[in-house]
Amino acid sequence: MKPFSRVALIGIGLINGSLARVLQKEGLAGEIVAASRRQETLDRALELGLCDSATTDPAAAVRGADLVVLGTPPGSMGALAAAIGGSLGTDAIVTDVGSVKAQIVQDVRPHLPAPQHFVPGHPVAGTEHSGPDAAFASLFRQRRCILTPLADADPASVERVRELWEAAGSLVDVMTPEHHDKVLAITSHLPHLIAYTIVGTVADLEDQARTEVFKYAAGGFTDFTRIAGSDPTMWRDVFLNNREAVLEMLGRFTEDLVALQRAIRWGEGEALFDLFTRTRAIRRGVVEAGQAYVRQPEDPLATKP
Amino acid sequence: MKPFSRVALIGIGLINGSLARVLQKEGLAGEIVAASRRQETLDRALELGLCDSATTDPAAAVRGADLVVLGTPPGSMGALAAAIGGSLGTDAIVTDVGSVKAQIVQDVRPHLPAPQHFVPGHPVAGTEHSGPDAAFASLFRQRRCILTPLADADPASVERVRELWEAAGSLVDVMTPEHHDKVLAITSHLPHLIAYTIVGTVADLEDQARTEVFKYAAGGFTDFTRIAGSDPTMWRDVFLNNREAVLEMLGRFTEDLVALQRAIRWGEGEALFDLFTRTRAIRRGVVEAGQAYVRQPEDPLATKP
Repeated sequence: MKPFSRVALIGIGLINGSLARVLQKEGLAGEIVAASRRQETLDRALELGLCDSATTDPAAAVRGADLVVLGTPPGSMGALAAAIGGSLGTDAIVTDVGSVKAQIVQDVRPHLPAPQHFVPGHPVAGTEHSGPDAAFASLFRQRRCILTPLADADPASVERVRELWEAAGSLVDVMTPEHHDKVLAITSHLPHLIAYTIVGTVADLEDQARTEVFKYAAGGFTDFTRIAGSDPTMWRDVFLNNREAVLEMLGRFTEDLVALQRAIRWGEGEALFDLFTRTRAIRRGVVEAGQAYVRQPEDPLATKP
Repeated sequence: MKPFSRVALIGIGLINGSLARVLQKEGLAGEIVAASRRQETLDRALELGLCDSATTDPAAAVRGADLVVLGTPPGSMGALAAAIGGSLGTDAIVTDVGSVKAQIVQDVRPHLPAPQHFVPGHPVAGTEHSGPDAAFASLFRQRRCILTPLADADPASVERVRELWEAAGSLVDVMTPEHHDKVLAITSHLPHLIAYTIVGTVADLEDQARTEVFKYAAGGFTDFTRIAGSDPTMWRDVFLNNREAVLEMLGRFTEDLVALQRAIRWGEGEALFDLFTRTRAIRRGVVEAGQAYVRQPEDPLATKP
């Protein structure tokens, strides 16, 4: 018997699409139904074989489902929960894959008939590509997945969601939504904010200078463009929904940047050297934690990772 | 007959070491002599077979050489040129691989017996690893290399340095030192500065928070650690020697960052979405220019790219 008989994937982009591949590969679902606002996305998902059926009506998708995975942008999840709440079975496990947690919990939970089966989640994985075509089964392998169940959550439901992500190859951690949002503000949201900013600074250059930036991007800029190529809607919602933690980390960053600017202006070589030596040690920490990547030249004709 | 009979590589780290591999692979040099201040580095270079002979005396290395490649940190090149000037043959071509150009030209040129054979250069390629062990022949393949000869440069010397880099697989461009420094300030120096800053902000977190950052680095932070793991001495010298252009670009970046901060604070979703859509287009430009990379998980036990 499969762990889940009917899985409803609400939203079928990079994350839920990749999860569909995992469900299929590991034989975890009797059937997979996908929901999306756009028929075009559903047609493509069916074409790619990501689901058994598809509908633009999320309430229809969750009817009879024993697992529901919310995979739409963070800002849309409250309205989505309101739309499906009346159709959810009281035994259905509801989880999500949003990159912020406290706000999503606050928005979604009031609409659920059985909040004890709500297990908010966040697979810390992704690429700069989005949509069903970007999905692939190994996306979550060796990546972290954070679950943020509330104190009254049903332990069995938490366990089943944990098993789902472990089947995807993820390393699962449990913490509070608030702690998640603080940690991700520095490891993910601030880096994206900085990358968006510097790439935006380049976007504002006059045409000739911009063309030159493309040519010489391998000197460092290219690393920023990858993350600044991420899904605009999702990232808008991340910043709007984790505002306080992001602004707090941004404040620290700005202080540090101004100090560095001053060191450059006044030619303080020793201060620069000391900082650059400390940051090199951090790189080693990330590599030792198994969370770094090596790079290979990207084929400009390829559309998938 | 080989294009160069005796090549002197002054400094034998990532860049000059990789160039040594190219010289060997393509059969471009009768003999390769390496110079370094540290005997340990030279021992390792000899062990790796990067050179035929090695010396801690750069003046001895350049004696009889028809090609001299300065591959030490930018801030050291003036003193280096002073040390070798009296031993250089008047037909010897002198080039360098420094990441800044105007200051190096100003520091090096006065010490050369035949400045018309000076062809300043900058291969826009690298990894976060340094030292002779990090060297590999394909480092420069499909990467840009910028030459910045002055107006009185001997065209034949420029041509021979161009052929050298083309043999390494690079795409060679020629521009003025000043233009180079402006372009690299945005494509390379500012990205490194930003990456050093954010990684430094993390380095200042208390221990537990820092450990968590390592675990969840795949959410975006990891991209910054790679470039913030680059050679501290070299990057100190880059910022000290391209101060004006870096501070100018940093000023633009800071303005943009503050504007974005304000948009987040005031919940201006549309402004965020518009910016993130524009930056996605820039990513496409970089990929189409062939200057992007795809990522693969890095083996924590591996020491080489």
